[in-house]
Amino acid sequence: MVKAITWQDDFLRLIDQTKLPLTTEYIDCRDYQSVAQAIRTMRVRGAPAIGAAAAFGIVLAAKRLLETQPSVNRPDYLALLQTAASELQATRPTAINLFWAVKRMLQRLNEVTTETPAEITRLLEKEAQSIWAEDIAMNHRIGQFGLSLIPEGARILTHCNAGALATAGYGTALGVIRAAHAAGRRISVWVDETRPLLQGARLTAWELLEDGIPVTLITDSMAGYLMQQGKVDLVIVGADRIVANGDVANKIGTYTLAVLAQMHGLPFYVAAPWSTVDLSLSSGTEIPIEERSPEEVRMVAGQCIAPPSVPVYNPAFDLTPSRLVTAIITDRGIIRPPYNESLPELARL
Amino acid sequence: MVKAITWQDDFLRLIDQTKLPLTTEYIDCRDYQSVAQAIRTMRVRGAPAIGAAAAFGIVLAAKRLLETQPSVNRPDYLALLQTAASELQATRPTAINLFWAVKRMLQRLNEVTTETPAEITRLLEKEAQSIWAEDIAMNHRIGQFGLSLIPEGARILTHCNAGALATAGYGTALGVIRAAHAAGRRISVWVDETRPLLQGARLTAWELLEDGIPVTLITDSMAGYLMQQGKVDLVIVGADRIVANGDVANKIGTYTLAVLAQMHGLPFYVAAPWSTVDLSLSSGTEIPIEERSPEEVRMVAGQCIAPPSVPVYNPAFDLTPSRLVTAIITDRGIIRPPYNESLPELARL
Repeated sequence: MVKAITWQDDFLRLIDQTKLPLTTEYIDCRDYQSVAQAIRTMRVRGAPAIGAAAAFGIVLAAKRLLETQPSVNRPDYLALLQTAASELQATRPTAINLFWAVKRMLQRLNEVTTETPAEITRLLEKEAQSIWAEDIAMNHRIGQFGLSLIPEGARILTHCNAGALATAGYGTALGVIRAAHAAGRRISVWVDETRPLLQGARLTAWELLEDGIPVTLITDSMAGYLMQQGKVDLVIVGADRIVANGDVANKIGTYTLAVLAQMHGLPFYVAAPWSTVDLSLSSGTEIPIEERSPEEVRMVAGQCIAPPSVPVYNPAFDLTPSRLVTAIITDRGIIRPPYNESLPELARL
Repeated sequence: MVKAITWQDDFLRLIDQTKLPLTTEYIDCRDYQSVAQAIRTMRVRGAPAIGAAAAFGIVLAAKRLLETQPSVNRPDYLALLQTAASELQATRPTAINLFWAVKRMLQRLNEVTTETPAEITRLLEKEAQSIWAEDIAMNHRIGQFGLSLIPEGARILTHCNAGALATAGYGTALGVIRAAHAAGRRISVWVDETRPLLQGARLTAWELLEDGIPVTLITDSMAGYLMQQGKVDLVIVGADRIVANGDVANKIGTYTLAVLAQMHGLPFYVAAPWSTVDLSLSSGTEIPIEERSPEEVRMVAGQCIAPPSVPVYNPAFDLTPSRLVTAIITDRGIIRPPYNESLPELARL
């Protein structure tokens, strides 16, 4: 299975996801700044994947500091790691996993009070590796829990990429799809291309083809017509943040699919690890929605496809209110409405 | 104002709409086969525009025949024109205006019983010029009728291109927008890029910028989120066919916008000339929906944006049931539900 992120002891190897599927290029990040840049430019993307990448970014900050200043004192070491953490967190605002992973690394840092910077660096490296490995394990659990929601022969619609490439491995929405395929359910998948950055066309279509799971590509505008014709049985997507009332931030276009699913009486499922849940916010309207460059809309594959001077609105995510979400599939189990009761309950596990 | 179609007495000049907006190239069609090819490849597109182009295609068939066989007899002349008519009608199945225009040309042909082929050719040329000129006049009437539906300051969402380029001139949905702008209503327009062929990004954005009408480009997946945020006041689109019960075939993605508009309590208007109305069909499900090449989805601006082997579904149009259509704006007036009463009533005018 493809790995978006591979830790190579002294550097972080990322697949450049902006080049897939026509070219498989790798980027070797040797410092936290290049990790931050890779997140910002979406060479690594997907909520769980950017969390894991940022965790390794902090490890790289510590390693490079120890190389240039082997006898750095503890306060300077901690100050540098704090700077790296802040810069990594400033790369993208919407997915909570980034903040969750960086916070977990800083907590580990604060737990160790007597160790030397060299010893702390080894602990941080282990922590980042745990975040990465746990993410894969969580995705497998999401897949197993989700299995019960996927009927034999289901025609599944998905959006963007919530696959191996969006995570440390296996995927969230695609984890459920992979588990159903592995269980012999004879499913087939419709994948929205997901403009502007075409993660559906470039990444999800590619992952499913590689796994031999039947997939058909459509443009984002076709999902409604498919449902009207009775060609879709259920929708499953990932998430960038799920808040206390069950509202979901996910890739732009998700909300439209949820509205269409409700209108056609189809289940709309969200699959995400527990690290995507943010109980500190009570409603989705509190989630900051990233706006990205107009060029992402005006350009496709390096070609201008609109008048170069046309104004553009480019929100990267949207909000799906919990009333449109049939169930949330997490590594702790399947959550159903009312989410403001079921989410806090699962948080206590 | 830009003209998609210009009759040059001996040939038909078309703007190559696949090249806009970055290049303004013209194609001079000297025979009906090249008109058919231009329609098939969408170098000329938009329901009223392909109707007018096909009418001139029949004139070109007659002119070229008279050049090679100046003394052609009447039966051979009529047979050749019948062949040209059939080939032109076979180019695209969904928009009714193509069939309407060709049928009108054949009716003119059948009305004249004593004239020579040379005389009939002159009458056909006049008929095609009338179809073209009447289309512009109808669009101005659509604009004037539509004006009453556009409030001061309205933020209007449109899809695809129902503009000057989709018609002989002025446009249907954009005709209403142009009329509102000319009346000083201080409107602004959101335009969906309209994948796969990007008529919104390439053509509508360009037309509105040229006219100085405020326009902002979005991807098709963003319309729902805009409505959720209260940034849209109404939706207006064109049509490729409107049937007796008020169901509408239009560019893929239209149905999704109609569902979203209903969910957000927004008016959803369809603007089209009477030549788009097909009372011979009782329901939209009888309309043939064209499926086009997978390459239109896999490729953008000559670049492959998906795994080259991925299966694709590419319906070019979808069906919007009449219950989602607030009103239909035609050159004969504004039609409101119940359409199965109001449409036949207007047909008697």
